[in-house]
Amino acid sequence: MTASSHHSVPAARLTVLAGPTAVGKGTVSADIRARYPDVWLSVSATTRSPRPGEIDGVHYHFVGPDGFAQMVEDGELLEWAVVHGRNSYGTPRTPVEERLAAGVPALLEIDLQGARQVRGTMPDARFVFLAPPSWEELERRLVGRGTEGPEERERRLATAKVELAAESEFDHVIVNDDVRRATDELITVMGLQPHVTHA
Amino acid sequence: MTASSHHSVPAARLTVLAGPTAVGKGTVSADIRARYPDVWLSVSATTRSPRPGEIDGVHYHFVGPDGFAQMVEDGELLEWAVVHGRNSYGTPRTPVEERLAAGVPALLEIDLQGARQVRGTMPDARFVFLAPPSWEELERRLVGRGTEGPEERERRLATAKVELAAESEFDHVIVNDDVRRATDELITVMGLQPHVTHA
Repeated sequence: MTASSHHSVPAARLTVLAGPTAVGKGTVSADIRARYPDVWLSVSATTRSPRPGEIDGVHYHFVGPDGFAQMVEDGELLEWAVVHGRNSYGTPRTPVEERLAAGVPALLEIDLQGARQVRGTMPDARFVFLAPPSWEELERRLVGRGTEGPEERERRLATAKVELAAESEFDHVIVNDDVRRATDELITVMGLQPHVTHA
Repeated sequence: MTASSHHSVPAARLTVLAGPTAVGKGTVSADIRARYPDVWLSVSATTRSPRPGEIDGVHYHFVGPDGFAQMVEDGELLEWAVVHGRNSYGTPRTPVEERLAAGVPALLEIDLQGARQVRGTMPDARFVFLAPPSWEELERRLVGRGTEGPEERERRLATAKVELAAESEFDHVIVNDDVRRATDELITVMGLQPHVTHA
């Protein structure tokens, strides 16, 4: 335990949630947002333009290329990437640090490459891997519509195999067999009180 | 200075060379390979198939999806990524560590995202940013052929602006105004003796 005056709260810890493509990270995040408003979800910065219905500061921080470059230059991004050579996405550091200092549990939902970058910038973070209930289930989600050719299908499965192996890079593994259950387990891993789930 | 018996050599340090798209990292690496055989260049592992003329262990380690997944699982990759959702590429850890332990200077030519991952896995590495001589020169290299539409041109320049800002994440900046000169400067930064360059 760290000493703290009665005016201050103990600093919270950043939790990083990552996992393979199509495992349901977005669904779990949405469930947390809906059911656990005491958890703060990190909002990414991006160079791309808002789509209809997207609100600046809620869905993304829409900063444009100049604003994004400034954040990079200032070391203000915990991780960032240019996606498909087009738009850049990143995680602002200051909002995370402010929440943690105020004792607010912060959650960052991110891809595997981003998570590995955060290992370098926030080594004290808690790294959680969201896993599919089974290989067959992930396969179903990845190639379920059956619209792709055999080559594309092979590629997706090969990628999934590699991404699943990344489980070993993480501190905790949560199986996404049921969204509410997985969310509750994540909340427990974060050291918070899960809600009672009514059937 | 670390103490070492007369039978052992002092461990060398990993140098990571990164920079924006089209800055000439590959050309500098090829120049080093040709002129400084005492520097060891890291060879990436990949899931993709060899192209005609490519030699396993020289251009890449062609490991296939199962072999790559095993490396990920074993924590054997200093950084890795799935590129365009298709093929995976990564940097094997063991060959790097073996060279360094034997006192052989090791160089890793890599993209910006990979470099940020290595910050987490090899924090003692030396991070070098290869920069274009000017914004105009980078612009020329990126949109030089003029075959792309105005939107694509805008995207490339916005990406370049962001990537250039990453300079601040690095320990050293080398301007690639002339390949031989840039290579010699990199060799100096690595603590080695540059060759005399004949005009």
